[in-house]
Amino acid sequence: MINRLSSTDADFRSRLEVLLAFEAALDAGVQQAVTDIIHDVRTRGDAAVLDLTRRFDRLDASSMGQLEVPKAELQRALESLGAEQRTALETACQRVRDYHAHQVQQDWKIVEADGTRLGQRVTPLDRVGIYVPGGKASYPSSVLMNAMPAKVAGVGEIIMVAPTPGGERNTLVLAAAALAGVDRVFTIGGAQAVAALAYGTQSIPEVDKIVGPGNAYVAEAKRRVFGRVGIDMVAGPSEVLIIADGSGDPDWVAMDMFAQAEHDERAQSILLCPDASYLERVAESIAKLLPTMPRADIIRASLQDRGALILVRGLDEACEIANYVAAEHLELSVHDAEALLPKIRHAGAIFIGHWSVEALGDYCAGPNHVLPTGRSARFSSPLGVYDFQKRTSLIRMSREGAATLAPVAAALAYGEGLQAHALSALYRK
Amino acid sequence: MINRLSSTDADFRSRLEVLLAFEAALDAGVQQAVTDIIHDVRTRGDAAVLDLTRRFDRLDASSMGQLEVPKAELQRALESLGAEQRTALETACQRVRDYHAHQVQQDWKIVEADGTRLGQRVTPLDRVGIYVPGGKASYPSSVLMNAMPAKVAGVGEIIMVAPTPGGERNTLVLAAAALAGVDRVFTIGGAQAVAALAYGTQSIPEVDKIVGPGNAYVAEAKRRVFGRVGIDMVAGPSEVLIIADGSGDPDWVAMDMFAQAEHDERAQSILLCPDASYLERVAESIAKLLPTMPRADIIRASLQDRGALILVRGLDEACEIANYVAAEHLELSVHDAEALLPKIRHAGAIFIGHWSVEALGDYCAGPNHVLPTGRSARFSSPLGVYDFQKRTSLIRMSREGAATLAPVAAALAYGEGLQAHALSALYRK
Repeated sequence: MINRLSSTDADFRSRLEVLLAFEAALDAGVQQAVTDIIHDVRTRGDAAVLDLTRRFDRLDASSMGQLEVPKAELQRALESLGAEQRTALETACQRVRDYHAHQVQQDWKIVEADGTRLGQRVTPLDRVGIYVPGGKASYPSSVLMNAMPAKVAGVGEIIMVAPTPGGERNTLVLAAAALAGVDRVFTIGGAQAVAALAYGTQSIPEVDKIVGPGNAYVAEAKRRVFGRVGIDMVAGPSEVLIIADGSGDPDWVAMDMFAQAEHDERAQSILLCPDASYLERVAESIAKLLPTMPRADIIRASLQDRGALILVRGLDEACEIANYVAAEHLELSVHDAEALLPKIRHAGAIFIGHWSVEALGDYCAGPNHVLPTGRSARFSSPLGVYDFQKRTSLIRMSREGAATLAPVAAALAYGEGLQAHALSALYRK
Repeated sequence: MINRLSSTDADFRSRLEVLLAFEAALDAGVQQAVTDIIHDVRTRGDAAVLDLTRRFDRLDASSMGQLEVPKAELQRALESLGAEQRTALETACQRVRDYHAHQVQQDWKIVEADGTRLGQRVTPLDRVGIYVPGGKASYPSSVLMNAMPAKVAGVGEIIMVAPTPGGERNTLVLAAAALAGVDRVFTIGGAQAVAALAYGTQSIPEVDKIVGPGNAYVAEAKRRVFGRVGIDMVAGPSEVLIIADGSGDPDWVAMDMFAQAEHDERAQSILLCPDASYLERVAESIAKLLPTMPRADIIRASLQDRGALILVRGLDEACEIANYVAAEHLELSVHDAEALLPKIRHAGAIFIGHWSVEALGDYCAGPNHVLPTGRSARFSSPLGVYDFQKRTSLIRMSREGAATLAPVAAALAYGEGLQAHALSALYRK
């Protein structure tokens, strides 16, 4: 039921490419709807948000006040949790905070011999928006993973939006918001929530950056407001790539693949192994364990469409393939994981050794679970504190420094035909 | 001829907003053309690039080989420069390199009491593309500013594209490429160059990120390939905001405004000052100096349409306005610039004191001249080494650490209805 490939197949590369290919079709209907929604929210503000929420979320509010969750309700949600869940949420929150504290960027400065001082100053964003999807993909862990880096960065105000179709509020999500120190929560979603955060309305303050996952409308709206505000990546389906040497329990590997596959049918789980008999044992574990899973249908569909067991020539080749795939999650399910580590250049997160499973990273190991998907780990990074800070260059020329550099600038400015640049520099000579 | 505002005007905020407003219209013609060009390049590769270059750049090449500039030609361009220009270029290159060396990000690691190790690893991108505009906006300084951070980051290969309409190659641009250590240069441009870099053709290798400014077609193409590859910001017109206390020479301030305005008609120069008589003196300097400028027509158009002299209540209010504007370039043309500095939260680069003029920063002070425009300094940073490195999270759980955290992860996973996540964690207990 799962795809089987071998790196010695003549058409291996093209089959791998087909397997990895995932391009969200640019849907003209979605594009037009988002254009209209953004225009409506910019023009009519709160009134548009209320109308659209009524229409898309079946939530009939007469004022924006009804669409804001009071702080006391967030706190009550937290207090209503059972001891086990509350402790788990608190442990996760604390570990995520501790890990991210290491990502805080620092100012730096150079002082030159002539007294010229150069450097960069790091400052937090003033206000950010966090989008939390509604319905089945509404995860309290995502609230923590999006809000905590902003909090650690020192962002002044965190505004969360989370649609509540039919008015149903998710207690765990609200509890996570309370714990993470989210400042305000609005029960709105879709392109209208993104537009409201980007442009502001009478009741919803405009933010400087919007982060968090969402459906096709949300993704398109984020693309469209990019520039007006910052956005995080536009995330694709979640993926795991596992490199196994056969030293681990095949049930563990199978369950790790299920954990990825259970997210949704488009999620991707790929196993690379040089030992054909081990691949068979994993296949047997999959067949044995799948019927026991509550989300078996989603897992089966995901493994059939996008999963693969791939026989490779050796662990070196596995690392080469891993670099091509640049997976969101890479598990090194091998005896000597440290030996492979230097060979991996591209991955969102690497789980090193048999005890380091993605599910721990998803919730509570500490690192962020918002990671680059769809081969974008080639050029982008996990969500982090650095996404909520920005830098300003500082240039303080001494009189002597300006005199030295003015002729250099002027020579280059004249070469570019920019005379005012040249004179502006030469005035300081 | 330049706009005059006062912060005490009843309609000041709305006038300021109108002045700052700049939204590149989404042109349906550009969008369709870019869609077609990307499709053509993806489908036909080199043949499409050759056809499109013939059509848009009037450059009739029969093979891609003719559109690549050999390394020897880059070197010859460098050697053909006069001593003054060559020294200026070398000085700029060295200072930019030295400054950016301070931006290199480092790996970090936490070791926990139970032996669990967490951290992040920083690695350079494998291959990047640099877009250098052709024609009048073809600046050697931009080659340095885009290529040097990539070089310092340790990027494996730097591919430059620079259209040469009619086949005219810019010696200074090629010399800068040689000096910056660009690996390959193709004389192609437009959406076809962006598509070729993003998807690769038979002759042009696909890159991981594309940076550099360009016209509306280039900007739209970059937006469209975003996700497939990384991109830098989509830049708007360049801007300077000057805060003056009246202690500087008004001619200097006027010329600094000209230096911004001479870029193009859409560039923006704004002066804030609490001293009405000083504003008059700057206006006189503008009137006096403008006729002497070779690019007087562009400067005049820019100052009339988008420039302003703004009377403010005091320097504190000037800082507040500066934070709202979040200018690309902010000059503190005041006696005690250090006193203002802590009050500024948002700017791309701050030029501190009378000797620190933007023109020095544009060429050779060391900081990057690619800076966030259009209020995006609220959430983004100057181009830097950090744009050419990315991070990978590392998670190496000890057996004991996994046993401790497995129940935490499981409690949260069950709360989210993700049973395979819970079991995958609990297997490690």
